[in-house]
Amino acid sequence: MKKILIVLCCLAMANGLFAQQALFNSSSVVSPETNPDGSVTFRLYYPKAVTVQVSGDFLPQKKVHVNFGGRSMAIDVTGSADMKEDTAGVWSYTSDPLDPELYSYGFIVNGMKYPDPSNIYRNRDVSTWTNIFIIAKSEGDKGYLYSVNKVPHGNLEKVWYASPSLKLERRMTIYTPAGYEEGKGKYPVLYLLHGAGGDENAWSELGRAAQIMDNMIANGKAKPMIVVMPNGNANTSAAPGEWSAGMYQPSLGFGGGKGPDFGKPAASMEQSFPDIVKYVESHYRVLKGQYDRAMCGLSMGGGQTFSTTMLYPSMFGYIGLFSPGLSLGKGSSGGKSFLDAMNSDSEFQTDIAALFAAKPRLYWIGIGKTDFLYSPVADLRTYLDAHGYPYEYMETDGGHIWRNWRIYLTVFAGKLFK
Amino acid sequence: MKKILIVLCCLAMANGLFAQQALFNSSSVVSPETNPDGSVTFRLYYPKAVTVQVSGDFLPQKKVHVNFGGRSMAIDVTGSADMKEDTAGVWSYTSDPLDPELYSYGFIVNGMKYPDPSNIYRNRDVSTWTNIFIIAKSEGDKGYLYSVNKVPHGNLEKVWYASPSLKLERRMTIYTPAGYEEGKGKYPVLYLLHGAGGDENAWSELGRAAQIMDNMIANGKAKPMIVVMPNGNANTSAAPGEWSAGMYQPSLGFGGGKGPDFGKPAASMEQSFPDIVKYVESHYRVLKGQYDRAMCGLSMGGGQTFSTTMLYPSMFGYIGLFSPGLSLGKGSSGGKSFLDAMNSDSEFQTDIAALFAAKPRLYWIGIGKTDFLYSPVADLRTYLDAHGYPYEYMETDGGHIWRNWRIYLTVFAGKLFK
Repeated sequence: MKKILIVLCCLAMANGLFAQQALFNSSSVVSPETNPDGSVTFRLYYPKAVTVQVSGDFLPQKKVHVNFGGRSMAIDVTGSADMKEDTAGVWSYTSDPLDPELYSYGFIVNGMKYPDPSNIYRNRDVSTWTNIFIIAKSEGDKGYLYSVNKVPHGNLEKVWYASPSLKLERRMTIYTPAGYEEGKGKYPVLYLLHGAGGDENAWSELGRAAQIMDNMIANGKAKPMIVVMPNGNANTSAAPGEWSAGMYQPSLGFGGGKGPDFGKPAASMEQSFPDIVKYVESHYRVLKGQYDRAMCGLSMGGGQTFSTTMLYPSMFGYIGLFSPGLSLGKGSSGGKSFLDAMNSDSEFQTDIAALFAAKPRLYWIGIGKTDFLYSPVADLRTYLDAHGYPYEYMETDGGHIWRNWRIYLTVFAGKLFK
Repeated sequence: MKKILIVLCCLAMANGLFAQQALFNSSSVVSPETNPDGSVTFRLYYPKAVTVQVSGDFLPQKKVHVNFGGRSMAIDVTGSADMKEDTAGVWSYTSDPLDPELYSYGFIVNGMKYPDPSNIYRNRDVSTWTNIFIIAKSEGDKGYLYSVNKVPHGNLEKVWYASPSLKLERRMTIYTPAGYEEGKGKYPVLYLLHGAGGDENAWSELGRAAQIMDNMIANGKAKPMIVVMPNGNANTSAAPGEWSAGMYQPSLGFGGGKGPDFGKPAASMEQSFPDIVKYVESHYRVLKGQYDRAMCGLSMGGGQTFSTTMLYPSMFGYIGLFSPGLSLGKGSSGGKSFLDAMNSDSEFQTDIAALFAAKPRLYWIGIGKTDFLYSPVADLRTYLDAHGYPYEYMETDGGHIWRNWRIYLTVFAGKLFK
């Protein structure tokens, strides 16, 4: 026992002593800590700090003015709250009681971002890492759905497949539900797409897709299904660092950041989509009818779902657009509203008519009330209404955020293959 | 195109604006940057800092004295170097030209650890996150082996399996080599174990096991094989956050940290190992003979390999101990040297005789010259020599670190199944 203790301690020394003193001190602070009333206390040992704040999506958003291309814009940013220092150099803040949810946060020390060193749980979104925590109160609430519970778990695989149309070997994430490995049955398939700046890891990490599916399937809220999470960037093979382009810094080109340029893809993501379906249907025990296939995506992936399902109108029986980035694939709409663009594009009109003629069982649209993409989505609803094309619509609070996309996945997944 | 740009920019706003000003500024700094001569420049925008250092394993280690249980101990810690500030508030440091390797580093701002915000590539080791980068110069060097290159890639799967002896559903990581999905052949299997504080993600993340295997197999340096990376903690189901115990903070109990206590396991990891082999051999196309199975592990996992292969002497044809934490499974050796312990333990003597009677093709030991576990490993070599038990031995510079374990994996894997 003594020997084991020494081994463990020495391991800690070998592995952990990165900044000596700081580590020793920070490790004795617990953060975040959920209190019995559902409030959360954040702590940071930082004796020399002048100001410390916690910034997180559990706090009210703030408006800030930014200069973007010479234009001043007011945008909503994550709220923050001042932390107070005790005599031992530990700064703390206790939130109000919080509703069930997966929250993101970080500290701001002397005006600079600082991750919570006491919390190993972190998510990367494009080029930003943030700490996360989950509040769960009762079975079936959002926090429960996003947590790993005592239910049977599906497997998660990172798969390389050939995409002849993109002329690339590419990687995707595939969830197989609990029981798949032991059984012989065939399963329906949901194709689940990420947004701009994301990759094939986004839905399983930021989106908690495996936890959501495990919990919904275990509780009878969703049918057992395979979930395929491809990489939606047609000029890359895989997530940053996971393919031969090296450890590049992903970027959306905003704020002076220079992202890598991998050139023009050999085809569009939409054109290449059958490569993915073909791989899945030849390597997994899946059902292959139109009503055994669903496709949905968020933001850019919602736009890809919009376009792909028109390009292959009888391929998918269930279609979901989550805060979609809609376009008609003809470049700029020249200042016209999206409604005007749709009303003056006969090719689009033929395509969407063909899609609804193929009778998808569900055309589902979800968007947040303050999403900057609200207006074109409202235009799409107007167009669908005008033509009598049936769809379901869900409007939630908030904007273009993962919190909404996780909700949309639970609602959409619960309607599939029934 | 204009529309796409606006969409992208708004996405950046929605996702990235965590600490407003800091993000805008930090995103324009490139760090780390590898220079043509192989040196590396680190940069950090931090205009209000008083001191900024870079701390990394590319710098010479430093000795520091720590108080541990009332005893003063001198230990080697990661080296650091001062960074210099320019007039724009950007601190920088350029290293000497570096040899091919995967390096870990972070910044220290005003004495506190600070991750490099311009580098998304980070590894978690127990409770510490560090930035990483890779220097690769030519095909086959260490940096090349640890990088994702233009070679066929294997798949990586997170699999849940039943362990009846541990009375748990458990998770492991399984690498299947390129060609497995398309072929019909059967493959040999390497069981690869992590150390204390690690989990089933350690070898694929910190250890770069998938990259090493992809590159070695593609270059003909290793036979195509399946690599199984179980969780070696017999009282847990999976990595922190990946099972129903919630988002606990892992700890080795050092420096006052209080790790979670999941109680006594239903059996030892060694006793439970056939549960893993049984799952693999019933769910994958694998060869099932003694000489089709290899087992190795680092530190605690090296000790588990040492014990498991004696418990099941004809199960594995290739055995690898990487900086092993050796014990005879009888608790404290009461202050005796490990050699004395072996020489006075008749059960051990019978077990190791039975192991070598089962004729493993390879019994391989690797350790660093300054590893704190050097002495018991030297004792094991003395014992093996005295009894004429054949083994291979590799001694490297440095101590109990991932840098050595990646080297040992490449050497050991190159000797398997030939």
